[in-house]
Amino acid sequence: MNKIKVYSPSTVANLSCGFDVLGLCLNTPYDEIEVIKNPDRKITLDILESQYDNIPKNVDENTGGVPAKLILNDLGLDFGFDIKIKKGIPLCGGLGSSAATSVGVVFAINQILDQQLTRKEMLQYAIEGEKVSVSTPHADNVAPCLFGGLTLIRNTKSLDVVNIPISEFSIVLIHPHIKINTEDARKMLPEKINLNSAIEQWGNLGALVFGFSSDNHQLIKRSMNDIIIEPLRSSLIPGFDTIKDNALKLGALGCGISGSGPTIFALCDSSEIASHIGSTSKDHYKSLGLDCDIFISEVNHKGPVVV
Amino acid sequence: MNKIKVYSPSTVANLSCGFDVLGLCLNTPYDEIEVIKNPDRKITLDILESQYDNIPKNVDENTGGVPAKLILNDLGLDFGFDIKIKKGIPLCGGLGSSAATSVGVVFAINQILDQQLTRKEMLQYAIEGEKVSVSTPHADNVAPCLFGGLTLIRNTKSLDVVNIPISEFSIVLIHPHIKINTEDARKMLPEKINLNSAIEQWGNLGALVFGFSSDNHQLIKRSMNDIIIEPLRSSLIPGFDTIKDNALKLGALGCGISGSGPTIFALCDSSEIASHIGSTSKDHYKSLGLDCDIFISEVNHKGPVVV
Repeated sequence: MNKIKVYSPSTVANLSCGFDVLGLCLNTPYDEIEVIKNPDRKITLDILESQYDNIPKNVDENTGGVPAKLILNDLGLDFGFDIKIKKGIPLCGGLGSSAATSVGVVFAINQILDQQLTRKEMLQYAIEGEKVSVSTPHADNVAPCLFGGLTLIRNTKSLDVVNIPISEFSIVLIHPHIKINTEDARKMLPEKINLNSAIEQWGNLGALVFGFSSDNHQLIKRSMNDIIIEPLRSSLIPGFDTIKDNALKLGALGCGISGSGPTIFALCDSSEIASHIGSTSKDHYKSLGLDCDIFISEVNHKGPVVV
Repeated sequence: MNKIKVYSPSTVANLSCGFDVLGLCLNTPYDEIEVIKNPDRKITLDILESQYDNIPKNVDENTGGVPAKLILNDLGLDFGFDIKIKKGIPLCGGLGSSAATSVGVVFAINQILDQQLTRKEMLQYAIEGEKVSVSTPHADNVAPCLFGGLTLIRNTKSLDVVNIPISEFSIVLIHPHIKINTEDARKMLPEKINLNSAIEQWGNLGALVFGFSSDNHQLIKRSMNDIIIEPLRSSLIPGFDTIKDNALKLGALGCGISGSGPTIFALCDSSEIASHIGSTSKDHYKSLGLDCDIFISEVNHKGPVVV
């Protein structure tokens, strides 16, 4: 294989109480990544025109370029790669945009290399890519993007990632046109938290994991609460409380901040509920004088797909 | 029905990373509780001779007497109960001894009342009983004792208890003859913990819950770590580190403090491994000049059983 094109998906990290450990893979939005073998032992990068074109074009500064270069060097390949990236995932939106580019490139290269890399190696290279855009990379976008479905990072250091079974859901993403820098959102976090809050959070997380794996929607609904991070970070997102209240009233199983925001996600039983939440949320942002994108997605159970 | 006798089981609370939320029900040791209807609208209490007989004989101070009296009054019954308790579970051992008495009495009375109480009502009465012996009662012994198997307390305030499926395991309990007061053990806990430690703990807890529900023993083994409470409380238990190292070397899936101790539990794939750990642990305590009881139990999937 000399050439491959993949769709690399967006992801919702955290899922409320699963801060830094849970992540969910979506069908849409996604990045388009094309990788073509070249004879020059070089990585070239081409950013195709899209609505999101403000990403680094230099290989060493691009989340896709970096892992490609690492793979080239580590494996001592006698060829290189031309990489074409068309962004479909908003940048700095909390939807795993940098993870998608990084994973998409690694995944595509691994197809060209006849699956030479293991799952864990792919994960490691993709995380190296993420390091370009965040100083403390977490696997909570990269892992679900690469493996699909719902992933639990048991341990970040050892990169022990577990796929939790998940059935079909509809997810609405409400992306207001404001920028939150991941680094700034991380700086808001306290160094220490109350033990009692932590206990309440891990009670919810345990129940949420079991709710998904046993497909118990009522349990998911009761468990999907973040009492630690969301109360702090939601202050960065105008309209958050109204959007969330409305989503829950309209039947969402849960609603929270996607990654470090500003995108708000709501997990729903049906695309009708998701659409309804999407349209009323858009109206609410309009009333606040803010534009927003609405995406409605199903769960992506596969990760990147070859086009 | 005028008379009933039940075995009310011991429980291992916390299971390492599941502090205050997880609890496991065991077949042995157990308390024997007999309840006999009397015509006097009174609760009488009889503590039968056993190796553990240092429990309050006054109805209002006994973890079984208190819920019995509450039920009598709340339901306006025109009869009373004679309660006979034979303790089989060490007191202050970290094995849910007070929960077993409380649950056993409530369960037995509910049999006499033709199951008039709901699961949740039974749980609430049993917790009222536990309040006699601990000032901040948690459901992490009462819930598994009453419902059997592995329970997760999603939320202590709302008493949202979830049964997590669990297959067969052998559990060895190593109970050195020292006393740790639950209150003292609780006072050791910090009010605040590092957010990073909390994240590591809830990553492990999520994985442990999924490990049990999917019967993935390797995942259970990787997840059963408590990085927050155990490092503090284990200092109260002589020989803890040696016992734990030895248990893991001999093949235990996990090893930690049962409840607030001093009992140490080890979760094993087989009774052979559990027995081996038990005998070498007993030898180790002998070398330290300490007596200890060893119990080997299977998982109790039912809770209290009618004899």
